[in-house]
Amino acid sequence: MSAGHVTLRDVTLRDGLQDEAPIDTGAKLAIYEALVAAGIRDLELTSFVRPDRVPAMADAEAMCAATAADADSVTRWGLVLNRRGAERALAAGLRHLQFVVSVSDTHSRHNAGRSTDEAMDDLAAVVELAAAEDGVVEVTLACSFGCPYEGRVPVERVVDVAVRAAEAGVASIGLADTIGVAVPSEVTALVEAVGERVDVGLGVHLHDTRGLGVANALAAIAAGIDRVDGSVGALGGCPFAPGASGNLALEDLDHVLVAEGVTTGVDVEGLVAAAEVACSAVGREVASHVGQAGPRFPHP
Amino acid sequence: MSAGHVTLRDVTLRDGLQDEAPIDTGAKLAIYEALVAAGIRDLELTSFVRPDRVPAMADAEAMCAATAADADSVTRWGLVLNRRGAERALAAGLRHLQFVVSVSDTHSRHNAGRSTDEAMDDLAAVVELAAAEDGVVEVTLACSFGCPYEGRVPVERVVDVAVRAAEAGVASIGLADTIGVAVPSEVTALVEAVGERVDVGLGVHLHDTRGLGVANALAAIAAGIDRVDGSVGALGGCPFAPGASGNLALEDLDHVLVAEGVTTGVDVEGLVAAAEVACSAVGREVASHVGQAGPRFPHP
Repeated sequence: MSAGHVTLRDVTLRDGLQDEAPIDTGAKLAIYEALVAAGIRDLELTSFVRPDRVPAMADAEAMCAATAADADSVTRWGLVLNRRGAERALAAGLRHLQFVVSVSDTHSRHNAGRSTDEAMDDLAAVVELAAAEDGVVEVTLACSFGCPYEGRVPVERVVDVAVRAAEAGVASIGLADTIGVAVPSEVTALVEAVGERVDVGLGVHLHDTRGLGVANALAAIAAGIDRVDGSVGALGGCPFAPGASGNLALEDLDHVLVAEGVTTGVDVEGLVAAAEVACSAVGREVASHVGQAGPRFPHP
Repeated sequence: MSAGHVTLRDVTLRDGLQDEAPIDTGAKLAIYEALVAAGIRDLELTSFVRPDRVPAMADAEAMCAATAADADSVTRWGLVLNRRGAERALAAGLRHLQFVVSVSDTHSRHNAGRSTDEAMDDLAAVVELAAAEDGVVEVTLACSFGCPYEGRVPVERVVDVAVRAAEAGVASIGLADTIGVAVPSEVTALVEAVGERVDVGLGVHLHDTRGLGVANALAAIAAGIDRVDGSVGALGGCPFAPGASGNLALEDLDHVLVAEGVTTGVDVEGLVAAAEVACSAVGREVASHVGQAGPRFPHP
């Protein structure tokens, strides 16, 4: 791996917490502070979804207000699924909106009650809403590497949706391995295929479900992406079974990147400390390798 | 990753069990049968060490006798630390001896009570003993990627010991990441450096302590090694802390290799079944990702 810079975007406060029993806003802010102290400058702050569906995200507006002073120093992303969510996020002061579209029609219908095309129709409107407030939109392409209903997803399908998203004016595209099925060669192939067709920022959102989170991240970085999503403590990510891994653990990824000479600006020990704050808040063990074993010596 | 063949050598019965409370020989044979049923044809059967030091390996001779009928179809390795162990292994009918030498003097003294050079002196004698019985010796170079006492180990040091081992007549060399500190670029560099200087089989023995077991294995395979060691269920490997990962889980590695078109001859579901047998025998949860989440769909 050649030296370079990669942005680590933390998703603990959104993906990491969304399926947990709600914790109070103060506890979330303690996690936020620990992440920022570790050097994280790009993070999913919350999501603007229905509080009856995702009670853990009911304090979205409060989280935005409490972190508003950092608006210039921390890129705070709010996840939205539709225009209503986008309006809420913008009203709450966010200028970085993540719009999720599943590239699988079946998954899109199950998850968002509409087809991929219907979601894409909304995307253009969301980009327009955001642009009116000097905001930007990233589209996260769920199921980019496979769908729980449809199985394999053809590369051409993902490229097609990515091209349409770029035409709709998104600032960046996230390729999400929603169910943790990708292997490194597939990551390389998809990143290259999408990268050849669109001229916007590219990131990956990876799950460690089958132990390939770090290997897939390294493949994505080698293929030229700008950003990798992950949580501290491997929180979240809809694990299949108790003990199964969720999101890629940022401390595990940062640990190897620093050793490989890739600049992240993020401190491994700081991430482990943030993992302890976050996992303790939801009553879970820190599930990352580096969180359990500590960094290698001498680090890096 | 280009297609090819890699041998997966199972180390469950030795590295996986050596630090556990002893289980009876029948329970070990059930693990052995499950491994062979999964397609494993290369495995560490036991070690010939002092039963007062490693009580879990006290039935070494019984394990050899009970599996003697497979001598032609399964490559059964016995770990030895000295001449006495080699004599026992040969007398028990094994013809594949693994001789462990730490490339770090300090670790060698702590682990085996002698320097690297003193261990290497014994290696020549062990090769001679084995050759007299048509046996072969592999040397496992412990601490090839770092030492708990000395920290980083220079590549030149490992290459030097490897060259001397090849001159002593070993059939193959295993590069062991004893404490789980390697990162992929270091694996690539060491495999290439050793491979340029010796003309014997090369394998790697990896631990997943910092979540890099699979990524390091993929790097080693890409660099040309013939064999990767691992256990089922991630058993063993002297984890640092409860819950910390030990050996690289073979089912996690096999899962990605099959998906990448690398032939192993080993069945992922069979490995998961063997992991369940092995982990149940020692009262632990299956700690592999694929053991917990199941193979991806469609598999491969």
